[in-house]
Amino acid sequence: MSDTIKTFPEMALRPVGVVHSSIKTPMLLAGKSDLSLTERMDMIKAHHRQVEACICELVIEPQWEELLDGIEGFSHVLVLYWPHLIDPARRNLRKVHPMGRRDLPMQGIFATCSPARPNPVLVSAVPLVARAANVLTVKGLEAVDGSPIIDLKPYSKNYLQVDNLKMPAWMEQIHRELEDDNI
Amino acid sequence: MSDTIKTFPEMALRPVGVVHSSIKTPMLLAGKSDLSLTERMDMIKAHHRQVEACICELVIEPQWEELLDGIEGFSHVLVLYWPHLIDPARRNLRKVHPMGRRDLPMQGIFATCSPARPNPVLVSAVPLVARAANVLTVKGLEAVDGSPIIDLKPYSKNYLQVDNLKMPAWMEQIHRELEDDNI
Repeated sequence: MSDTIKTFPEMALRPVGVVHSSIKTPMLLAGKSDLSLTERMDMIKAHHRQVEACICELVIEPQWEELLDGIEGFSHVLVLYWPHLIDPARRNLRKVHPMGRRDLPMQGIFATCSPARPNPVLVSAVPLVARAANVLTVKGLEAVDGSPIIDLKPYSKNYLQVDNLKMPAWMEQIHRELEDDNI
Repeated sequence: MSDTIKTFPEMALRPVGVVHSSIKTPMLLAGKSDLSLTERMDMIKAHHRQVEACICELVIEPQWEELLDGIEGFSHVLVLYWPHLIDPARRNLRKVHPMGRRDLPMQGIFATCSPARPNPVLVSAVPLVARAANVLTVKGLEAVDGSPIIDLKPYSKNYLQVDNLKMPAWMEQIHRELEDDNI
């Protein structure tokens, strides 16, 4: 590790709340490597449908409730959360087949949305349905029930919208397959 | 703190790299509360122009280089970084005037993009200009030189694009003022 890195302040996170969701398990559990491609695709599509329809609650610790004031003015929020069911050993993975699909080429972890990564801080923009005191209701969040919430931010065009997005063929394919499924 | 929260695993982050940038100081330093509104607006606009034009390097620790493989296929990346110059005491702030502007109503921290927040993990989607080995070149990142990098992700429509975005009047106003400045 370089000298520059050694002098950094400690970056310790404290949970500010917890996700209450009907989604109880991550999409792909480790050890399910024996699935056929068709079985895996069916599982991915079923999970995707479940996530899209899911209405869940973000229960913020009462001590932080005041920090939510004004968030109800936004149609969408950015949720940062920790995938707490991931085996910590998987934070050292280097490459994966996207979504565990052997038909797609191996990619470096930073080129994927895999929850297994050196710092597993997952980020998702979702519609805000309601706020009541310290509880936000949101739609379409993939977080598993019990996930610690790290941060909430308003959806800001400045930081999150991009023009002329291009992506590699493997991700185009995933998007296409999931969209077809919605029809 | 509730029982649910106490059982969470420790969420310790380790820097995976560092930002090398010509931006050496955050936009608004604490203690600059004596600025007039005009002075503050001029400072915000000058900073915004500097950020938009800024080309900077994300230098990833050599041990993690392989995780970047495939990222060059994306036009945009999501950068998660830590604002290392923020005084840790400011992680306990509850409400702020957005961008320090007294003319805008106080908002809870979770309703703003303030870098001072309980877990200061900043998130920005930026164009990827180039990759050479363990170094990514990106455009328009607001991170200050020396900021620890927490994570890199591809820009995924699934997690980051939203439809029918609505925001409160104060943020509409900020966007409008910064856009006017670009003409």
